[in-house]
Amino acid sequence: MPRTITILGSTGSIGTQTLEVLDTLSAQGAGDHADTFVVRWLTCNTRVADLVPQVRKYKPYGVAIRDEAACAQFKSLCPDFTGPVLCGEEGLCEAAADPANTIVMSAMVGFSGVVPTVVAIRAGHPIALANKESLVSAGEYITGIAREQGVPILAVDSEHSAIAQCLVGEELKSISRIVLTASGGPFLNTSTEQLDDVSPEQALKHPNWMMGAKITIDSATLMNKGFEVIEARWLFGVHASQIDVVVHPQSIIHSLVEFVDGSVKAQLGIPTMHIPIQYALTYPRRLASPVQPMSLTKLGSLTFFEPDHQRFPCLKLAFDALEAGGTAGCIVNAANEVAVHAFLNKHIRFTEIPRVIERTLESMKNQQNPSLPTILETDAEARIIATHLTTSRLVSQ
Amino acid sequence: MPRTITILGSTGSIGTQTLEVLDTLSAQGAGDHADTFVVRWLTCNTRVADLVPQVRKYKPYGVAIRDEAACAQFKSLCPDFTGPVLCGEEGLCEAAADPANTIVMSAMVGFSGVVPTVVAIRAGHPIALANKESLVSAGEYITGIAREQGVPILAVDSEHSAIAQCLVGEELKSISRIVLTASGGPFLNTSTEQLDDVSPEQALKHPNWMMGAKITIDSATLMNKGFEVIEARWLFGVHASQIDVVVHPQSIIHSLVEFVDGSVKAQLGIPTMHIPIQYALTYPRRLASPVQPMSLTKLGSLTFFEPDHQRFPCLKLAFDALEAGGTAGCIVNAANEVAVHAFLNKHIRFTEIPRVIERTLESMKNQQNPSLPTILETDAEARIIATHLTTSRLVSQ
Repeated sequence: MPRTITILGSTGSIGTQTLEVLDTLSAQGAGDHADTFVVRWLTCNTRVADLVPQVRKYKPYGVAIRDEAACAQFKSLCPDFTGPVLCGEEGLCEAAADPANTIVMSAMVGFSGVVPTVVAIRAGHPIALANKESLVSAGEYITGIAREQGVPILAVDSEHSAIAQCLVGEELKSISRIVLTASGGPFLNTSTEQLDDVSPEQALKHPNWMMGAKITIDSATLMNKGFEVIEARWLFGVHASQIDVVVHPQSIIHSLVEFVDGSVKAQLGIPTMHIPIQYALTYPRRLASPVQPMSLTKLGSLTFFEPDHQRFPCLKLAFDALEAGGTAGCIVNAANEVAVHAFLNKHIRFTEIPRVIERTLESMKNQQNPSLPTILETDAEARIIATHLTTSRLVSQ
Repeated sequence: MPRTITILGSTGSIGTQTLEVLDTLSAQGAGDHADTFVVRWLTCNTRVADLVPQVRKYKPYGVAIRDEAACAQFKSLCPDFTGPVLCGEEGLCEAAADPANTIVMSAMVGFSGVVPTVVAIRAGHPIALANKESLVSAGEYITGIAREQGVPILAVDSEHSAIAQCLVGEELKSISRIVLTASGGPFLNTSTEQLDDVSPEQALKHPNWMMGAKITIDSATLMNKGFEVIEARWLFGVHASQIDVVVHPQSIIHSLVEFVDGSVKAQLGIPTMHIPIQYALTYPRRLASPVQPMSLTKLGSLTFFEPDHQRFPCLKLAFDALEAGGTAGCIVNAANEVAVHAFLNKHIRFTEIPRVIERTLESMKNQQNPSLPTILETDAEARIIATHLTTSRLVSQ
C-alpha cells in the first residue's frame, strides 16, 4: 500500500527537494517495498507559478494556498485541476488535518508553520519536521501534544536527522552531550567591522548548503544554529547545558552524540538535504538513494573550532532564550523573522539583527508554560515591537 | 544478580584492561543496576607473576594456566588459593565451557585463542571477542557455530566495536560499505628503503595505542588492519569489496559505516580500549565511564588518506586471503605469527614479514569450508613451513 503524504510548503527549498525524493522512491517502488507515496495535498503561500507544474506532475488530491490573491490566481492558471483548492490558513489546516494523510511534511518558513503543524499533530499524523521555527516558538507545547497523541516528530534538519540516526537503538538517558556542527556560514572569517557593512547578497551566499533566503540569513548570523540548539532540546529531551556548538566548515559531520560511557557517534555525508528528507520518510528503514558517496580521502581533512560568540551574538541569544524557557523562544523567533526581513530589504544592517532581537526581548514579559493562544499573541506582539524597532532605526548605534 | 565473567588471557593488555573496566562497573554497581561482574576464571599462558596479584584482588573461582611449568609455579607462588587450578589447553577449555559463565572475554593472543573460543561458543556463552586471530583463522567456522548456537559475538576491537555501535538499530542489509580507519602505525612516513632496516624497538612504538607486542608489530605492517578486514567480513556479513581501509593518523574516528541511502555513521572517541571493552560487557546498555571526553575543537583537525599498498603489502595479502576464502586466512595468520616472532627475535627483517606469509601461502593448498581439525592441521603445517622460511632465511633478497 503506498503511503499518503501532504507537503506543507511544497514550493520552498525543502518542499521541492521532498518531491525529488519522492521521485527517487517511486523509481525504486517498482521493486518489492512499499515506500512509494501518493501526494495528498500540496500547499504554498504565494508561489502559485511554482505550484502549477508540481500539480501537473504529482497530481495531488488537493491544493491549499495561504495567500488569498494567489489562491484566486491558481484557479485561473490551472483551471483543469479538478481537486479541491483551499485558501488561507484554514485551508492549510484542513489539508494538514486530512484523515487520509499518513505523514505530513512540515516545510513552511517561519512561525507560519506553527498552527498547521499543531493541527497535523492533533489529527495524529506523524510529522517530518523541517520547520524548526515551530519548535523554537512552541517547542514545549508542540512536543507536549505530540507525546499525548503518540505522534512521532521526525527531524528533517540535517543536524537533527544526524542526531536521530545516532540515537537509533540507543536510550535517551545514555546521552551525555549533543554536539551540533555549524558551517560557520559565509562570514566565518569576516571581522566585526566588516560585518557592519555586509549586504544581503553577500549574506545569501552560503558556502555549503543551497537553502531558502530566511534560513540562509539565519545561517550567516548563526541564529540558525541557535534555533537548532532549541530544537535539539525539544526533540531529544536534553538540557541546554548538554548542547555544544562546534564550527566545522566542511559540513561533513552533520552532528554528534556523546554517550555516558565516553563513546561518541556521528552522522556524516555530503551536504545534501535528500538524505535527511528520505530518512524521515522511510524511517526506520533506509532505501537506496542516488546521492554521491562521501569519500574521506578525497576530503583529506575535517576541521573544528569554537564559535565566536562576540561576532555572532545570535547564538547566545538562543541559548539564553532556551534557559529562560516560556515564551522567550517565541519572542526571539518573531523578532528574528522581522529583523531578517528588514535586513533583506536593506532597512537595517546585518549587525543590527541581534540588537532588534535583544531589544524586543527586553520589552516583553516572559510567560512560562504558554498555551497556543499565548504563543500566537506573543508572536504578534513581538512582531509589532520588532517592526517598530527596525522601521524607526532604534537599534542603530 | 551480578553476571559471571571468565577472562581468557587475563594477564595480557586486553585482559588487564578488562579487569580495570570491572573496577569501574563495580564502583557504580552500588547504585541501581546489575552490571557488576563476579570473576569466574582467570587464565593466562605463562605470566603467573602477573596472575597472582589478579587472583588476590579479584578472587576468581578458579584459574587456568596454559603452560604446564607456569601452572606448577603458580601453585607454589599462591599456595593459599583454594579454588581449582587447571593446567594446559584442556584447563583453559574447561574454564571456557564452565556452565556458570554468563560471558567469556576471549583475549588470548593469536591462534591459541581459537579452541577455547570455540569451546565457549559451543557451551552457549556470549563472547566478548578481542582475539581477532580466531576469526582470521576460523571465521567461517566460528561464526557458523555461533549462529547455530544463537551465541552473540561482541566485538572488542575498537574498529569493530565502532561498527557494531553504528549498526545498533540498523538492518545489516542497509550497509553499503564499511570503512575501517587505520592509524598507519609508527612507519606511516617511513620510506621503503628505511623499512628494510627498522628494528623491533622502533616497530613497538605505536603512536596512539598501548597494546601487546604481537598486535603492535601487526599494526606496524598493517597486517592488523588486514586482519580487521577479515574480522569485519565475518562479524557483519559484508563482502570483501564492501570494506575499505582509510588511514587516519589521529585514531579518533574508530570506523564508519556507509548505508544504502548515502548516510554515513561513525563512532569516535579518544583512543582507549576501556570504551569498547565496557560496551561489549554492558551491551546493549551504556554505563558511565571515567574516560576523558573527546573534544573536536581541541583536536582541531582530523585527516584521512589512502593506505600505501606498496610499502605495506600485508594489507593486500589479507584482502586476497579473504577473497580466496577456505584456509587462506588460517595460513596467513599462522605464517604471520611465526614471522612476527622471528622479527621480534631479530631473525628476519621487517620487510621480510610479508614475504614469509606470501611464500607460505604459495606452498600450501587452500581448502574450502574447513572443519576445526582441518583448521588446526593447516595452522600447524603453515607454522612448520613459515618457521623453515624464517630460520633458513629463504625470504631474504
